[in-house]
Amino acid sequence: MKNKIILGIDPGYERLGWGVIESCGNRVRLLDAGVIRTHKSEEFPTRLAIIHAELTSVICKHKPTDVAIEDLFFAKNTKTALKVSAARGVIFLCAVHHCGTIHEYKPNQVKLSTTGVGNADKTQVQEMVKRILGLPEVLKPDDIADAVAIAITHAAHSRS
Amino acid sequence: MKNKIILGIDPGYERLGWGVIESCGNRVRLLDAGVIRTHKSEEFPTRLAIIHAELTSVICKHKPTDVAIEDLFFAKNTKTALKVSAARGVIFLCAVHHCGTIHEYKPNQVKLSTTGVGNADKTQVQEMVKRILGLPEVLKPDDIADAVAIAITHAAHSRS
Repeated sequence: MKNKIILGIDPGYERLGWGVIESCGNRVRLLDAGVIRTHKSEEFPTRLAIIHAELTSVICKHKPTDVAIEDLFFAKNTKTALKVSAARGVIFLCAVHHCGTIHEYKPNQVKLSTTGVGNADKTQVQEMVKRILGLPEVLKPDDIADAVAIAITHAAHSRS
Repeated sequence: MKNKIILGIDPGYERLGWGVIESCGNRVRLLDAGVIRTHKSEEFPTRLAIIHAELTSVICKHKPTDVAIEDLFFAKNTKTALKVSAARGVIFLCAVHHCGTIHEYKPNQVKLSTTGVGNADKTQVQEMVKRILGLPEVLKPDDIADAVAIAITHAAHSRS
């Protein structure tokens, strides 16, 4: 059974959560996680450049074999959706340049994979992420827990 | 009066129009223009990587002092809008990495700048672009004409 190093990403332009797990057979363990933050005082293109630089640095450090990202749902605020989409463009670019394929999962797939229920709430997902990884407490902030949940979802999908 | 080399971009992920003009005082002249095409048989992240590579090559060749892009209007097809937005993220990144600031113009600003009328139609804009640049015929395809119109709009705005 070949180990996978999976980078999970919760996309955003103000806060981008990321988590790296190692997956081997049915076992997964957390290697590292963090949040890339950009400030609204910066011009939007500069914020994208910060995301690009920091994400490239995460990828170069952990050399993930797989990248998984949350599929964009249709936010009520379309302006926000368009900006998150621009950030996703930059994330895709980082993944293609350094890792190859990127896998997308919808929020209900992430909920189903982690909790067994497609309409589980955030707290249930966070609790299951904690249990799956054998952590003493739930991951904080939410952006990290979400990113790691996406990585776990990809680990489960790769197995089946 | 300092010369400006302006790269105008009509953003897209299937076809991205670009045009480079030189602007000095009230005079503008066309230096180069083209279309970056990506094929739907390619994965979306790969298409973004193609756009990134080709646009970087255009920027390295012409070393624009200014980059101008059409502001995204709210397309009826939201899926398309999100994909164009991802391409815009990649375009912004190229601009920040190689040129600095990027200037955004709404379609009605482009129409007003080129024709003097905010609700001019595509044909009127193309005809005025031809006249402003002293070309023998209108620029084809539309993506190029649109990109050059955006560059001309930025030249006019920089003057005033």
